[in-house]
Amino acid sequence: MPASGTSRSPRRTRATAKPPAVAKTVPARAGRSATNGARSRRATKWVYLFEEGNAQMRDLLGGKGAGVAEMTRAGLPVPPGFTITTQACNAFYENGKRFPEGMWEQALAALSTLERQAGKGFGDARNPLLVSVRSGAKFSMPGMMDTVLNLGLNETTLQGLARLTGDERFALDSYRRFIQLFSKIVLGIPGENFEHAIDSAKRTHGAGSDAELTPAALRELIETFRDIVRQQSRGQEFPEEPLEQLRAAIGAVFDSWNGKRAVDYRNYNKIPHDLGTAVNVQMMVFGNMGWDSGTGVAFTRDPSTGEKVLYGEYLTNAQGEDVVAGIRTPKPIAAMEQELPGVYRQFERIAKRLERHYRDVQDMEFTIERGKLFMLQTRTGKRTAEAAVKIAVDMVRERLITRAEAVQRVEPAQVDQLLHTRIDPAARVEVLGIGLAASPGAATGKAVFDADRAEEMAKAGEKVIMVRIETNPDDVHGMIAAQGVLTSRGGRTSHAAVVARGMGKPCVAGAESVLVDLEQRQFTAGGRVVREGEEFTIDGSTGRVISGRVPMIEPELSGDLEKVLSWADQFRRLQVWANGDYPRDAELARRFGAQGIGLCRTEHMFMEQERLPIVQAMILARSTEERRRELDRLLPFQRADFHGILKAMAGLPVVIRLIDPPLHEFLPSFEDLLVEVTRAEAQGLPPESYADKRTMLAEVRALREQNPMLGLRGCRLGLLFPEIIEMQVRAIMEAAVQLTREGVEVHPEIMIPLVGTLEELRRTKGYLQRTVDQVLAEAGIRIDYKFGTMIELPRAALTAAEIAEEAEFFSFGTNDLTQTTFGFSRDDAEGKIIMPYVEQKILPSNPFETLDRGGVGRLMNIAVIEGRQTRPDLEVGICGEHGGDPDSIAICEKLNLNYVSCSPYRVPVARLAAAHASLAMHGDRDR
Amino acid sequence: MPASGTSRSPRRTRATAKPPAVAKTVPARAGRSATNGARSRRATKWVYLFEEGNAQMRDLLGGKGAGVAEMTRAGLPVPPGFTITTQACNAFYENGKRFPEGMWEQALAALSTLERQAGKGFGDARNPLLVSVRSGAKFSMPGMMDTVLNLGLNETTLQGLARLTGDERFALDSYRRFIQLFSKIVLGIPGENFEHAIDSAKRTHGAGSDAELTPAALRELIETFRDIVRQQSRGQEFPEEPLEQLRAAIGAVFDSWNGKRAVDYRNYNKIPHDLGTAVNVQMMVFGNMGWDSGTGVAFTRDPSTGEKVLYGEYLTNAQGEDVVAGIRTPKPIAAMEQELPGVYRQFERIAKRLERHYRDVQDMEFTIERGKLFMLQTRTGKRTAEAAVKIAVDMVRERLITRAEAVQRVEPAQVDQLLHTRIDPAARVEVLGIGLAASPGAATGKAVFDADRAEEMAKAGEKVIMVRIETNPDDVHGMIAAQGVLTSRGGRTSHAAVVARGMGKPCVAGAESVLVDLEQRQFTAGGRVVREGEEFTIDGSTGRVISGRVPMIEPELSGDLEKVLSWADQFRRLQVWANGDYPRDAELARRFGAQGIGLCRTEHMFMEQERLPIVQAMILARSTEERRRELDRLLPFQRADFHGILKAMAGLPVVIRLIDPPLHEFLPSFEDLLVEVTRAEAQGLPPESYADKRTMLAEVRALREQNPMLGLRGCRLGLLFPEIIEMQVRAIMEAAVQLTREGVEVHPEIMIPLVGTLEELRRTKGYLQRTVDQVLAEAGIRIDYKFGTMIELPRAALTAAEIAEEAEFFSFGTNDLTQTTFGFSRDDAEGKIIMPYVEQKILPSNPFETLDRGGVGRLMNIAVIEGRQTRPDLEVGICGEHGGDPDSIAICEKLNLNYVSCSPYRVPVARLAAAHASLAMHGDRDR
Repeated sequence: MPASGTSRSPRRTRATAKPPAVAKTVPARAGRSATNGARSRRATKWVYLFEEGNAQMRDLLGGKGAGVAEMTRAGLPVPPGFTITTQACNAFYENGKRFPEGMWEQALAALSTLERQAGKGFGDARNPLLVSVRSGAKFSMPGMMDTVLNLGLNETTLQGLARLTGDERFALDSYRRFIQLFSKIVLGIPGENFEHAIDSAKRTHGAGSDAELTPAALRELIETFRDIVRQQSRGQEFPEEPLEQLRAAIGAVFDSWNGKRAVDYRNYNKIPHDLGTAVNVQMMVFGNMGWDSGTGVAFTRDPSTGEKVLYGEYLTNAQGEDVVAGIRTPKPIAAMEQELPGVYRQFERIAKRLERHYRDVQDMEFTIERGKLFMLQTRTGKRTAEAAVKIAVDMVRERLITRAEAVQRVEPAQVDQLLHTRIDPAARVEVLGIGLAASPGAATGKAVFDADRAEEMAKAGEKVIMVRIETNPDDVHGMIAAQGVLTSRGGRTSHAAVVARGMGKPCVAGAESVLVDLEQRQFTAGGRVVREGEEFTIDGSTGRVISGRVPMIEPELSGDLEKVLSWADQFRRLQVWANGDYPRDAELARRFGAQGIGLCRTEHMFMEQERLPIVQAMILARSTEERRRELDRLLPFQRADFHGILKAMAGLPVVIRLIDPPLHEFLPSFEDLLVEVTRAEAQGLPPESYADKRTMLAEVRALREQNPMLGLRGCRLGLLFPEIIEMQVRAIMEAAVQLTREGVEVHPEIMIPLVGTLEELRRTKGYLQRTVDQVLAEAGIRIDYKFGTMIELPRAALTAAEIAEEAEFFSFGTNDLTQTTFGFSRDDAEGKIIMPYVEQKILPSNPFETLDRGGVGRLMNIAVIEGRQTRPDLEVGICGEHGGDPDSIAICEKLNLNYVSCSPYRVPVARLAAAHASLAMHGDRDR
Repeated sequence: MPASGTSRSPRRTRATAKPPAVAKTVPARAGRSATNGARSRRATKWVYLFEEGNAQMRDLLGGKGAGVAEMTRAGLPVPPGFTITTQACNAFYENGKRFPEGMWEQALAALSTLERQAGKGFGDARNPLLVSVRSGAKFSMPGMMDTVLNLGLNETTLQGLARLTGDERFALDSYRRFIQLFSKIVLGIPGENFEHAIDSAKRTHGAGSDAELTPAALRELIETFRDIVRQQSRGQEFPEEPLEQLRAAIGAVFDSWNGKRAVDYRNYNKIPHDLGTAVNVQMMVFGNMGWDSGTGVAFTRDPSTGEKVLYGEYLTNAQGEDVVAGIRTPKPIAAMEQELPGVYRQFERIAKRLERHYRDVQDMEFTIERGKLFMLQTRTGKRTAEAAVKIAVDMVRERLITRAEAVQRVEPAQVDQLLHTRIDPAARVEVLGIGLAASPGAATGKAVFDADRAEEMAKAGEKVIMVRIETNPDDVHGMIAAQGVLTSRGGRTSHAAVVARGMGKPCVAGAESVLVDLEQRQFTAGGRVVREGEEFTIDGSTGRVISGRVPMIEPELSGDLEKVLSWADQFRRLQVWANGDYPRDAELARRFGAQGIGLCRTEHMFMEQERLPIVQAMILARSTEERRRELDRLLPFQRADFHGILKAMAGLPVVIRLIDPPLHEFLPSFEDLLVEVTRAEAQGLPPESYADKRTMLAEVRALREQNPMLGLRGCRLGLLFPEIIEMQVRAIMEAAVQLTREGVEVHPEIMIPLVGTLEELRRTKGYLQRTVDQVLAEAGIRIDYKFGTMIELPRAALTAAEIAEEAEFFSFGTNDLTQTTFGFSRDDAEGKIIMPYVEQKILPSNPFETLDRGGVGRLMNIAVIEGRQTRPDLEVGICGEHGGDPDSIAICEKLNLNYVSCSPYRVPVARLAAAHASLAMHGDRDR
């Protein structure tokens, strides 16, 4: 390990450490600090003085180290110090948690420099240098890792510090803070021990705040702290030797990289675990040296509204941790203008300079030591969705950034937030239970337990939330009437979830802790009973079920957001289409900027209340003729459906998928029928009273399959019962003819699902073509239409070159393709297998949410490349749920698809994500 | 079409027509026959004189045409003639069933040559030339296409023929034969019309056979025939013009290529449909010119035993169709030695010459015209399995062929036949019903309807056949006792089928026409009732259920077969391993020549009667501890299993697959439990009386999955319940340790199933490795073992490069890989989708029987190549059922696998198929 470490590192160092000045200083410095004489001139450089680094060295120096270095370079008032590299942290772990060879020696050398720069000595009783030791990873992980302040204090230096500053109380206070923090972080002694001691000291001495403790009281407290350390560490003394303190603190910061909080944070934020943290050792400056001292944090703009004002807070006569820990309530930064006007003006100038320098909002930490301003840190400021949009647009106006940069400054997930009603984050809510976040947005309404009642109450002007154990097609009219849906069973692909997402309504699904009692018309959750008519709230973005009514933030499609999206449209290559089954979906999608319908599922139409009996009669038909008769009854419905959606999308393409699911999905549940028939038999009811059920049971049994996902569905249905899809194609083309006559431009694209072989597509298309030709010949009209297929089976992707002979377009059905590629039935696996897998990091993420690159992505790549070899103008898109996921959209950009298609509500998100993907791949081509 | 046809064809012609003499004659001949003056010198050559062809031109001239040409070249006495190419047939179809341009003109030119060679004129009243018009495809399709004899006869030429031969009766007889055959084949008039007329003529004239009909009677008959033609073709006359006859007959032969019989035959024999047939026009010679004339067919060796004697039959004073149609009973060829000794000796010489020339058994047709022998046809003789083996071995002894050729002369399917008891093909049987041929071989036994009774009767020395609606693990002891199994429900992957195949016992499964009445202990089929104790027969090779006892042919592993197999072993590169779960399988496999166990499924062991309750208790355990307790009880069973199988395979590798199926497969059926509980509830039984059932129902419901194939199984089980497979690995390694101590060499290979990602394998292997290390450390012994995985998911194949980092071997689970690649659940799709697909030619074959090259094969190719890039010594095999299928074995050879693994009974088949595959790929490397 060390061997490869030393051979690899210098290259990396040279590559990132751009300024030649730095490179030049390396050998000299390394040579001087070689106290043990064993290191060669080519040894790894583990330690950089602040003036040796710059902003580009984030990988090596971490965000904080690179930031401080950059500020130092910029001539800002930064306390001097040095950074131990992230590479040293990784080497520390590789090395069995020992410092890599040479690191400590380099740190000592840097410390000497620091002593010279500060004009103080580390451990010097007369003129002591104190330092902070802070973590600093490449990506900011606020509060997740450890920091030690005031390091270097001991009984000796304490005296020196008191003497030099003439303020014994300050020195004692610093010392007790140091012991407290060091003991907690480095020695691992629980912090409450010390807090209790402070509280009891305050009580004893009648002090209202820490600042009121007298030197004597502090000295007592310090002794108490020492006792605590002794007790908690089996008799060991608190370390007095400053170098020992430094060594232990550096190790503790390295350790904190793999602390539980840090690991959880990285998992949540998808930050790799192998980056390591840097350690920054910096001269302490003191905000607690009286009322002309202080410390604070500030943003260059308001991170919650985006307004262009200095935003932040500060505390006088305090150190940084008082602000962070919220021990004392800080004042708004504006107050500083009165209290310390000169410093405030200097700070304002520096803030502006930093924003111009970094071309983004800065989040700064500063300390004022006896009226002198020190900048401790600056980094890109996190911001809310609203702020992100406003700041991006403002900065373009200010000519600070380009439009492309503005687009990149807004995260797609932030756009999603802006499009849904949210619970005011400031509100206090009583959470009754948690289910799956199945469809985003929040809603308040009166609980209602069946669809008819929901419809009734909604007609009477009430807002209702429909509560069911599970939903089925009979509940759809209730869902239409409701503000949102809550179910106690079923996953994110359950009927409730899918339908609610399609409607853009909030849905919490599978909330197993919510006990729904349909007979009593009430549910019990979190120890409370909610009866029909009582108001409650669901949050489909988080899965929370909440008591009563809560304050909401309504979505607002601000002009700024529209501006950002319109800029995004200029930069994206991928088109964004929408999945939608109904004209209302199409209208919505179009309003959100969809450029086509990528998936219109015809079977949802079959599920509608008035049609389902016809569909069932059609399925149970004894003869082709009988089936045709029922299909003739369905034809006008389907024609009207297609008329509506094609009209709504006038001028744009509409991909209509022919019937896909296994037929038994349209029939009553096997289990219910079995129970009913068995019960009737056991009760000795007259057979004729349940003859229909018996017949239906037999039919459903005959259609039932072991693995319906892999059974009689998709184009297989069409090959065995051509009349069903012939009817559908007739309905599509008749609607298209009618619209053309009405002067509406239509572009229907007929999609044949679940194709695995060229021959399936050829046959199916063959006879459907006859239907098309017939309708068009009868009408004497030409229509621009296409035939294509879903690529949703591995075999289709692997033989795409052949399939493209017959397909004019491909649409990746990545839900099914993920199922077959992984051998995961989504319904079975998502809860039982995939979630545990993601938790245990067996999978990096849920492949049904973010496209799997190695498997599914590889199949897609094969299909795109080989399909286009056969047919260069092949139109390729994606209509699986991945089409709305930003990470997956980035993969689609790499795969060079023509479009992504997602639910209407995701269209703005996808527009932005597509722009990000394009800019990441190709940069801003306008520049 | 014609344009591309003419540009493509000459190239093909030049490439195949090797002898330069032929090429030279083309332009001259084409020029001379250009009666319409429109053809260029580069026009397609559609017609070849026999002397222009040779044996290599089968593609173009068909088997018969090439054969006759070759015989002509060899100077054998062949009647002159010409061949119209297969390419002309294809052009005929492309051309909307019209002759391609120039074909007819070339045929006329060839006919002129033929007239000169014969010294006769076509349609010449004084000296008429008569011809036969025969089909002749590349591959022999005996009796499947049409032939017209005596063409050229009409009222005029009839007179000439009679005059020239001085035999009016012969001429009339030929004429009536011609009318009869031409009418049936070319005009499509049903043959029975003519047969009835002959019968009535014989009755009228008191003739015992056709030959006794007088000229007058024949003349009357001819008139009757003409009347029949007139009646059946709406007043049209039988065509008198010979050229019109010829033209129509050629068209009819082309037509017959796509006749139903021919298409069915090609489907059955997997002959491509686009080859086309050639048409051979040849001078007629007459076997019916008196008792020194005759006709016959003969093989150079006995095609049923392989004995080296001329074998065949002939008829004097008869034409060929009499022999083929079986109208008169022919005499054995040996009789000719007495009747026509000179001709016989000449024929013997020619037969020997032909066999030496073609280096294989020849199937010859000949005619003797007034003592002069004409050879009409020769082709490779079809032979039985026994004969194929004997002939191959004899010909090596005779130094006629090499060992490699001998190996290639025996078909793997023939070996399979030789390994199972067959019903004597000569026996007349009463078929009661047909089911699926689920496990090959035939058996007779007494019907028995439950496992206990089967065991009891078998102990009493009775042979029984177990009859059930379906079988389940409780029936296994009955199946062990029985000669075979018959079920009325379930497919080829049903429990009965899988278990029977594993045991090598015949099984007919899913015989839906067999009504099994378990209560009455009888079954009804084909209108008959078979009661318990009654004898009946099943044929698992054909799916037949047969009444009573029938004569059988027992399998015989002859010395010759062993010789052929040992030669096969010299030529094959692929190893042959066997799938086997029990020591008895391993012993059998080894006897059949298996070089390892490629798949030992541990879950079958779980299904055994005494273990199932423990397995169920383990599954239903409330805690890991409880589960471990049950697993501790299973451990000794599993250890004993592995001890047995590793011992039986001493010195050879044994791949043991850890538990794979979803756990609910080990529990009672959900449906049965639901019915029982519902019934008990409805009948108001005391709840405590069925509390256990209720509990079990809840458990089974919780474990139930929508698509169990894609659910919680394989390595997913092991990642969530590590203790199960830890127990299995402990059992394997403890057995291995014990055997090593006993001095037995063991090579266990631990196979982790259903891996889709590297991480799954890494984790699973990680903790199993600890178990292995523990066992080996405790024992202080070293064992040669491997960890590997099944490649049975597309994602595993696509990421094989990664997976090979952890896997020391891959085994393709092509059953599952086919399921996921195609999205076919085998249980659901094989009957409902795949069979109709194969019938309708949407699929070329059942991908569960023969590997799909384009999809599954491509994934395998990716996995092999990329897996070996990571790990060059990766061991790769196949353990899906394809491992025993010769076509699939050929693909495995191309994919460069290390071994194929199949059921023990298929091992000899696979050894031969592997040799065929090697020889086809690499030739005989010894030569």
